[in-house]
Amino acid sequence: MLSVPGAIDRARSARRIDHDIETLAGSDYTLSSTAIRRYAYTDVYAHTLDYFRQQFQDLGFDVFEDPVGTLVARNRPRGVEVFGLGSHCDSNRNGGKYDGTMGVVTALEVCRLNRDLKSNLPLQVISFLEEEGSGFGHMLLGSRIMSQRVTEEELRQPIRAVDDARSFWEHSQAAGYHPECWRDSIQVLQDLVGWIEMHIEQGRVLQDTGTRIGLVHAIAGCIHADVTVHGRADHAGATPMDFRLDAGLVAAECMLELEQLVRAAGNGTVGTVGEMELEPGLINVVPGLARFSLDIRGVDQDTFTGVATSIAAFAEGAARRRGMTAKCSTRQAMPATLMEKKILEAMEGAVQMTGESFTRIASGAAHDTMCVADHVPAAMIFIPCKDGISHSPLEEASAMDAALAAEVILRAIHSLLT
Amino acid sequence: MLSVPGAIDRARSARRIDHDIETLAGSDYTLSSTAIRRYAYTDVYAHTLDYFRQQFQDLGFDVFEDPVGTLVARNRPRGVEVFGLGSHCDSNRNGGKYDGTMGVVTALEVCRLNRDLKSNLPLQVISFLEEEGSGFGHMLLGSRIMSQRVTEEELRQPIRAVDDARSFWEHSQAAGYHPECWRDSIQVLQDLVGWIEMHIEQGRVLQDTGTRIGLVHAIAGCIHADVTVHGRADHAGATPMDFRLDAGLVAAECMLELEQLVRAAGNGTVGTVGEMELEPGLINVVPGLARFSLDIRGVDQDTFTGVATSIAAFAEGAARRRGMTAKCSTRQAMPATLMEKKILEAMEGAVQMTGESFTRIASGAAHDTMCVADHVPAAMIFIPCKDGISHSPLEEASAMDAALAAEVILRAIHSLLT
Repeated sequence: MLSVPGAIDRARSARRIDHDIETLAGSDYTLSSTAIRRYAYTDVYAHTLDYFRQQFQDLGFDVFEDPVGTLVARNRPRGVEVFGLGSHCDSNRNGGKYDGTMGVVTALEVCRLNRDLKSNLPLQVISFLEEEGSGFGHMLLGSRIMSQRVTEEELRQPIRAVDDARSFWEHSQAAGYHPECWRDSIQVLQDLVGWIEMHIEQGRVLQDTGTRIGLVHAIAGCIHADVTVHGRADHAGATPMDFRLDAGLVAAECMLELEQLVRAAGNGTVGTVGEMELEPGLINVVPGLARFSLDIRGVDQDTFTGVATSIAAFAEGAARRRGMTAKCSTRQAMPATLMEKKILEAMEGAVQMTGESFTRIASGAAHDTMCVADHVPAAMIFIPCKDGISHSPLEEASAMDAALAAEVILRAIHSLLT
Repeated sequence: MLSVPGAIDRARSARRIDHDIETLAGSDYTLSSTAIRRYAYTDVYAHTLDYFRQQFQDLGFDVFEDPVGTLVARNRPRGVEVFGLGSHCDSNRNGGKYDGTMGVVTALEVCRLNRDLKSNLPLQVISFLEEEGSGFGHMLLGSRIMSQRVTEEELRQPIRAVDDARSFWEHSQAAGYHPECWRDSIQVLQDLVGWIEMHIEQGRVLQDTGTRIGLVHAIAGCIHADVTVHGRADHAGATPMDFRLDAGLVAAECMLELEQLVRAAGNGTVGTVGEMELEPGLINVVPGLARFSLDIRGVDQDTFTGVATSIAAFAEGAARRRGMTAKCSTRQAMPATLMEKKILEAMEGAVQMTGESFTRIASGAAHDTMCVADHVPAAMIFIPCKDGISHSPLEEASAMDAALAAEVILRAIHSLLT
C-alpha cells in the first residue's frame, strides 16, 4: 500500500544532500586536486559507486551493476514494476561537484524520504556509466549501451580510453565487468514504468528569472557541423578590394545570418559559431580560407534541422556571390527528445503543492534521459546553477533547491502510481 | 657628357638578370634548402653582399658599406651628385628569389647598360640592410637607420635577434660594423638628386590587368590594430538567444562594416581582418571573447586614418548595442608617402618610348623608399609577380619584365639629368 507523503523537512534533506556532495568531492573521489575528475574504471570512480552502494544497502535496496558497470539500486525484486530515477556520477576532466552527481544524490534522497515518510514507493535508481565521455571520449556511453544505441564493434575497437588508447572492451574486462554481455544491460529498463532525472540546468535561465524548478518538456536535438570557405590569400596592402576573395567576409555573413535564422525560427532554437579559424591567420594577409563550426539545437526537429539546411545553403550562396566556394559537413546529429506529458503534469502538480516557482524549460544539453526515453516514459527536472556555469570547478548549485526537487519527485511519483 | 641611350638588347639584359637571380638562389646564399632565408649578419647575407661588391667593382664602381652594413656602390667620387637606385637583398624567413633582390639586380643591370651604352650617368646603388625584419623583427631597419627614424636606445636594447635575442648593437659589432656611428649613415643620401626603387608588385593588379609596368605614385600608409570584444562564455545548448553575450557576433559585424567603410572611402583604401580568435573556441560554447586584427591602408592619409577611427567607434557601438564592450588598440601606424611627380613623369615618358603597357599604381606594401623619400625626391617602379604571391618560395617574376624596368629606369634617369 502506498501512502500520501506527509510534511517534508526540506532543511534536513538539504543537509543530507550537502553531506553526500561534499563527501564525493573529497580526495578519494577525484583524480584532480583542483577539480572533480572522475571517469569509468578509475579507483575514484569505483569508490564513488561503493559510496552509493553502501547508502542504498543501508536503505534496504538491492544493489547491482549492469554488465559494464552502470549502478542499479532497487527496493523491489526483479520483475516487479518500479519507478526509475537517477543520473550519472562521472564528471568532466575538470568538472564540478554537481553535474550528474547531484542527480544521483537527489535520487538517493528521494529513497531516504520514501523510507522516512513510509511512502513505500517501488523505486529503482540508476547511476549511468560514463555520461560525460571523459574516460573514453564518447558521451552518454552507459545509457547508449543500455538502450542498445551502440554496436559491439564500437565497444571492441573504435571507443578507446583517452588516457592510454586501450579499447573500452579491454578496460571493461580489466575492471572485472562483462562487456560481452552488454546487450543484457537493457534488462535494467524492463521493469520501469517511468523515469525522472534531476540535473543542474547548465544554463542561466532559472537563475536569471529567479525560478527554482525547471520542468524539462524536451531535450533539444543537436546538429554539429563545420563550414569551410575557400577564398584566396593575398597581400593585405597590395590587393585592392575588388581583386580579393576574402573567405573571412563570407564567414562573417554566415555568423550574422545564423543569428537571424534561429531568431526567426523561434521555438527555442539556438545557433552558435564557437570555433573560427582564418588561414593563414596573419594581420597583413587576406584570409584565403575560413573554417567555422555550427552548433544548432532545438526541441522542434523540423525547425532546427531547417535552420541547419538554410545556413548551409546560405553559406554556399554567400561564397558564390563573392566568387568563392563554401562547403558544410555534419559532424554529428542527434534528434530532439520529447518528455512524457503525464510525468510533467505530475511534477507540475507536485511543485504547485510546494508553492515554489517553476517553469517549463527545454534542455539544450544532452542527457542520459534521451536514451532512457527510447524505452520508458521519461522526464527531467532542473534546478538552477550559478551563472549557468557547468563542466568547471566553479560549478555551484543549492542543496536546498535539490531538496525541493527531491520532494517534487517523490510527490510526483506518488501521484503517478496511485 | 651624358649621351642618349641607344637601342637596348633587352633579351641580353634578361639573361644577365636571370643569371644573377639564379646565382643568388644557390645554397651559398640561403639558410634554407626549400626557400630563400637570408638576413643581416649571417654568412649567406655576407656572401650576397660579396657577390654584388664584385659585380660593381667589375663595372669600376667604388663599393663601401654604411656603419651598420647597408651596401653602397657609386661611379662618382663622394661629394658629386649621383642618381640613386636599389632595393634590399635580405628575404623573409621562407621567402622567394625576387622580393628585394630583383630590385638590386635590376639596379645592377642599369649600371651595366650605362656602361654598355656609354651613357655615363652618375649612379649610386644602395642595397638596404634588413628590410624584411627576418633577422631582428623590425621592418625597414637599414633605411630607418639611414633616415634617422630610429633611436640609439632602440638599436642598443629592444631591437633583438629573432634567433638568439642578442641585441642588434651586439650583432652589428660582432659582424665588424660600427653601430656607434649609425648617425653617419645619412651621409649615403647626401649626394642623391633622386631615387628609384624597382620591386615586384606583391599584388595581382598588374598580372590580372595584363600590364607590364606599374609606376608607383604613392606608398600607402598603414594602421595595424587589434580589437578585443568582451562578452560572456555560455553553454551553446542551454543558453537561449536573448540570454547571450556572444562576442563573435560583434566581431562579424565589424568585419562587414570594415568592408563597407573602405569601399565607401575609396581612394584605393583597403581594410583587412586577417587574424580572428574566439575564446574558449569550442563548438558548444558561446564565444565569451573575440579578438581580431585590423590592417587599414591607403595613400590618402585622412581617408585611411578616418576609416580606422570609424571602425574603432563602430566596434564600441556594436558591442554596446549587444550589452558588451570592445576596445581597439593600435599596434603600429605609418603615414602615406607620395612619390615625386617629376620622376614619375620621366618614367612615364621612358615607358611610352618602349611602347609597353603601364599604369599608375599605389604600393600597399611598405618599402625602403618610404625612408629615402624623407630626404630625396623618390619614386618606385613595379613589375608583375605571379598571382600576387610574395614572401613565399612560390614567388615568381619575369626577367624580361625586369629588363624592361631597367631600360625604363635608365632612360628616365637620363631624361631627368639632361
